[in-house]
Amino acid sequence: MEVVQQDTQIRFNNHEHSRKIKAWVQDNRTYANLGKCANYIPALERANPSQLGICIIGSNGSMVKMGDFDTAFTLQSISKVIGFIAACIDYGISYVLERVDVEPTGDAFNSIIRLEVHKPGRPFNPMINAGAITVASLLGGRNPVEKVESILLLIERIVGRYPTINEEVFHSEWQTAHRNRALAYYLKEMGFLDCTVEEALEVYLKQCSIEVTTEDVAMIGLVLANDGYHPIRKEQIFSKEVARLTKALMVTCGMYNASGKFAAFVGIPAKSGVSGGILAAIPPRGRSGDSPFMDGCGIGIYGPAIDEFGNSVAGVMLLKQISREWDFNIF
Amino acid sequence: MEVVQQDTQIRFNNHEHSRKIKAWVQDNRTYANLGKCANYIPALERANPSQLGICIIGSNGSMVKMGDFDTAFTLQSISKVIGFIAACIDYGISYVLERVDVEPTGDAFNSIIRLEVHKPGRPFNPMINAGAITVASLLGGRNPVEKVESILLLIERIVGRYPTINEEVFHSEWQTAHRNRALAYYLKEMGFLDCTVEEALEVYLKQCSIEVTTEDVAMIGLVLANDGYHPIRKEQIFSKEVARLTKALMVTCGMYNASGKFAAFVGIPAKSGVSGGILAAIPPRGRSGDSPFMDGCGIGIYGPAIDEFGNSVAGVMLLKQISREWDFNIF
Amino acid sequence: MEVVQQDTQIRFNNHEHSRKIKAWVQDNRTYANLGKCANYIPALERANPSQLGICIIGSNGSMVKMGDFDTAFTLQSISKVIGFIAACIDYGISYVLERVDVEPTGDAFNSIIRLEVHKPGRPFNPMINAGAITVASLLGGRNPVEKVESILLLIERIVGRYPTINEEVFHSEWQTAHRNRALAYYLKEMGFLDCTVEEALEVYLKQCSIEVTTEDVAMIGLVLANDGYHPIRKEQIFSKEVARLTKALMVTCGMYNASGKFAAFVGIPAKSGVSGGILAAIPPRGRSGDSPFMDGCGIGIYGPAIDEFGNSVAGVMLLKQISREWDFNIF
Amino acid sequence: MEVVQQDTQIRFNNHEHSRKIKAWVQDNRTYANLGKCANYIPALERANPSQLGICIIGSNGSMVKMGDFDTAFTLQSISKVIGFIAACIDYGISYVLERVDVEPTGDAFNSIIRLEVHKPGRPFNPMINAGAITVASLLGGRNPVEKVESILLLIERIVGRYPTINEEVFHSEWQTAHRNRALAYYLKEMGFLDCTVEEALEVYLKQCSIEVTTEDVAMIGLVLANDGYHPIRKEQIFSKEVARLTKALMVTCGMYNASGKFAAFVGIPAKSGVSGGILAAIPPRGRSGDSPFMDGCGIGIYGPAIDEFGNSVAGVMLLKQISREWDFNIF
Repeated sequence: MEVVQQDTQIRFNNHEHSRKIKAWVQDNRTYANLGKCANYIPALERANPSQLGICIIGSNGSMVKMGDFDTAFTLQSISKVIGFIAACIDYGISYVLERVDVEPTGDAFNSIIRLEVHKPGRPFNPMINAGAITVASLLGGRNPVEKVESILLLIERIVGRYPTINEEVFHSEWQTAHRNRALAYYLKEMGFLDCTVEEALEVYLKQCSIEVTTEDVAMIGLVLANDGYHPIRKEQIFSKEVARLTKALMVTCGMYNASGKFAAFVGIPAKSGVSGGILAAIPPRGRSGDSPFMDGCGIGIYGPAIDEFGNSVAGVMLLKQISREWDFNIF
Repeated sequence: MEVVQQDTQIRFNNHEHSRKIKAWVQDNRTYANLGKCANYIPALERANPSQLGICIIGSNGSMVKMGDFDTAFTLQSISKVIGFIAACIDYGISYVLERVDVEPTGDAFNSIIRLEVHKPGRPFNPMINAGAITVASLLGGRNPVEKVESILLLIERIVGRYPTINEEVFHSEWQTAHRNRALAYYLKEMGFLDCTVEEALEVYLKQCSIEVTTEDVAMIGLVLANDGYHPIRKEQIFSKEVARLTKALMVTCGMYNASGKFAAFVGIPAKSGVSGGILAAIPPRGRSGDSPFMDGCGIGIYGPAIDEFGNSVAGVMLLKQISREWDFNIF
Repeated sequence: MEVVQQDTQIRFNNHEHSRKIKAWVQDNRTYANLGKCANYIPALERANPSQLGICIIGSNGSMVKMGDFDTAFTLQSISKVIGFIAACIDYGISYVLERVDVEPTGDAFNSIIRLEVHKPGRPFNPMINAGAITVASLLGGRNPVEKVESILLLIERIVGRYPTINEEVFHSEWQTAHRNRALAYYLKEMGFLDCTVEEALEVYLKQCSIEVTTEDVAMIGLVLANDGYHPIRKEQIFSKEVARLTKALMVTCGMYNASGKFAAFVGIPAKSGVSGGILAAIPPRGRSGDSPFMDGCGIGIYGPAIDEFGNSVAGVMLLKQISREWDFNIF
Repeated sequence: MEVVQQDTQIRFNNHEHSRKIKAWVQDNRTYANLGKCANYIPALERANPSQLGICIIGSNGSMVKMGDFDTAFTLQSISKVIGFIAACIDYGISYVLERVDVEPTGDAFNSIIRLEVHKPGRPFNPMINAGAITVASLLGGRNPVEKVESILLLIERIVGRYPTINEEVFHSEWQTAHRNRALAYYLKEMGFLDCTVEEALEVYLKQCSIEVTTEDVAMIGLVLANDGYHPIRKEQIFSKEVARLTKALMVTCGMYNASGKFAAFVGIPAKSGVSGGILAAIPPRGRSGDSPFMDGCGIGIYGPAIDEFGNSVAGVMLLKQISREWDFNIF
């Protein structure tokens, strides 16, 4: 399936790039066999593991969509990026970093060890669950609904559509969140939560359950690529400092325990979720004269078969190929 | 002190940039008060903590040197970068990565915990001591002298001068290397060393004792910035893949336990050593039209007063200012 | 204050032993200055730190009470012993040990690290919180009230009085149990809890809030000393196997992170609580001919000023003196 | 094979007890199938896994020997007990405990994690390798030979024969001691070793290589059982305080990571070695009137097929049966 879209802002992309992306999606879709869908809740388990879709949006408004680009999926851990940005918008970087550090850990996303060993240290970074729950607790708003609203509104400003929360997913997450509750109660005891444990979890699990498509994710990536500036809406959504900090976090901690390998072999700021989504931001650069998207672009990928680390298998392989072929590696 | 150098290859740099660097060195030198020289061996303890020097070499051969740029210092952990590259040249990336992973850890550089918890896993990355000793053991050469030689020759190819090993530093390191011996014996038991413990340590501690100046380090950074190509000698020293991988490692693991913070607030591939040196590589890019070194540059910094993480205090602050002012942040 | 009590079952103790105990209580009371009352909930913080009381009940029914022996206090961690015995009575040792191991750890009582490192292992022993919460969850009874009832009835069978739960303490514990909730949710995720987290915590925190005096605790110790046989009521309360196992656990894990030191220098099966209570069981033995309580005895101590490990400072010193003077050391 | 020995000091044991021991050795020998000999060095690997032998010496000099009681084996970790006693004799308990704690850990015998997490804490106890190497380093003597001599002489005083060191075993241990070297260098860096790493290891590995039989080990157990007093030679070899402390350590930490289970189900102070030896000390007591060895006894066992924890499989089962049948459980 191929879509080349145009409206007042989004323009046709040239055919050669579309043709290449089409071939790469086909080629890399086979890697989905090496993974399987997350199965801890029914909604994720029901996903079609052979799907693979992508949307790329350039700074000039050009867009390429290919494969299963229009399947709706929940943000899951990709929401950690949005939550972190929303918290920085509301309170400033300094305030947020008093509650959560920005160091990679090498531990599993849901690890609790480091909190105890480094007691009474902050969670190591906002891309692991401990850090993301801490960030969720300090979002602007007097209650969980308002806190989630600050994330929903930020997404709306970027994608032009108020997103919905997948209530089935949220309900399932809520029921099975034993490990996250363990983390949250630990954080509460250590004084890192600005609200009750149940409130923080409600915010965190609702932000994880926000439903998007690859286009939404690509648009978020586009704004990150442009240092917080929305090149299509022509609006500064958040500061350059927040954007740079967020992209650095994506590189050092964005792909779970495979972040180092992803940086080493793909070299793109990216954040994955167990639903199979990947958010990537390609900053503008002038390295190779003949690559497309020289002014930067945002990429949204969906491929629900994930690997042992929690990353979309086919999605990572697709991004790796794109990065190599079009020299998107930032290093 | 200001030096603008010229020879057949290295050209004058324009005065305005020199003037700015001069002011920034002066400004940031005061931060040295917040750190102190490493004191575990006499040679490092004797350093003048108030020193701060820098050398920047652009891809076009322009060079700026300022402050205490000509003080000789030992590579220490900066050598981990050279050793890793040398091993990849000798054996290929795949072979090396069978012995050492590329994931950041958040643990201290000399930590042994993770080796035990993740048993029988590889060392997490070549920028921590466990990984660097592993890499040292597999360098090309039948004995420690030949293995060190492979590093010395690589440096010679880049800087045009066969470097010397500071024997006093090596001797002191050798005497006090209890923790590194502990790591090495642990690695030996786990089967990660290709030679004896004493041989691996001799290689590792000798590479740490290689004496350089900021210009040497800047030249190494320049080659990394140019993806392994030496723009002055017009020679491909190592492959683009090795260069990209190495720069990714520098970003995720290069600045000890402050790597995440450095990525977040400076955003430059860099590697520090406890001697106070910093190696930085600025890839070419086209972001802001009015910055110098648009085609990329290498930076060598020396400032022996280090912080709790092991990084030059004034050096980090200087790099932060340069990155902000000239938009060197890669994210 | 000295009390020598007599009824049909409890007989006068000889005066010399009373006199010695009186002196030792006076002497060791001064050690209370080195500790302070637990302060995480008001009820514990309100305790008088200078108090020290003891009750010893011999197998022949003789009893000595001295000092602040009649101050009511909550069992806290001493309840872990009762809960473990109750679970073994209800389900047998084998069943219980499928859910909780009997190995000492050296970790803090509320540590969560080991659960993660040894995943998916059982909690290491029933004397740490993770193990005690697991045991609480599998107690006989269809709901928390019935599960707590099984502990209350066991205590009633031993002390001859249905104990009360200090509702203020339970309420405070419930409000501040963030760390225990973290542990419990972790256990739930790992499949070790037989009921909901909130139910397990209700049981565990209620059993911690059972109010007793030194005499109650001494009577429990007496039954343990006699391998489950109640020498005054002339009734086998639980099996010899359960008693021996429980005393072994008390020796290896009963005094928090100071269990090893307590075994080394006091040498008595004992279990402490942060309220300042200590339960000790002196098995019958024939070592030295002139010691009192040759047929074994139970000891209850109360001294609310606790040390860094959570043990009553004066209580431990008092037990150490008694053990040395009367050769109670079992080794 | 059955031997009932008599000399001026060692008297015949009654026939019924010999008959029972004979049957139990036969019965429990079959458990050897569940284990296998240590295979990290040839000398241990060569042992006959089906062997099982025992020697029991009572305080009155009676002795029972059964099965493969006369096979020579090396002390291995059993030497940790002797080394600890020797150090306490030379320097006093207080001095020794400044270098090594007495807390059980639950970690593997060769674990290094805890040293790092609890930095800069002492090794947790003298029964794990880190603690035993520390103790070896502080033994009386100006060099390794003299330090080992202090252990050999202590054994000679107890067993009446100057023991030999199995040089083949020592040589093999020395060659393969990577993990112990790692521990020792770690300890050296932390300042816990009183001599060089190589010296401490020489002492430790030589003490592990001391060759004994079950009778030697039983005699050591007999002296421990009698609180340091040698009932046959009628001599106080070491103080009651050292004996009690040592037996407490054996109970909490003597059987590797199965110490808790051994205390719970066997209930005897014991120390095992990977060679398949077990040292046990049964304190005198008057619990059940019809058991033999009412005045205490020492037990030496040899059964080289070990379990996953490092304990003789058949030996543990044999001790369990003896403890149950003759009520040797100290709790």
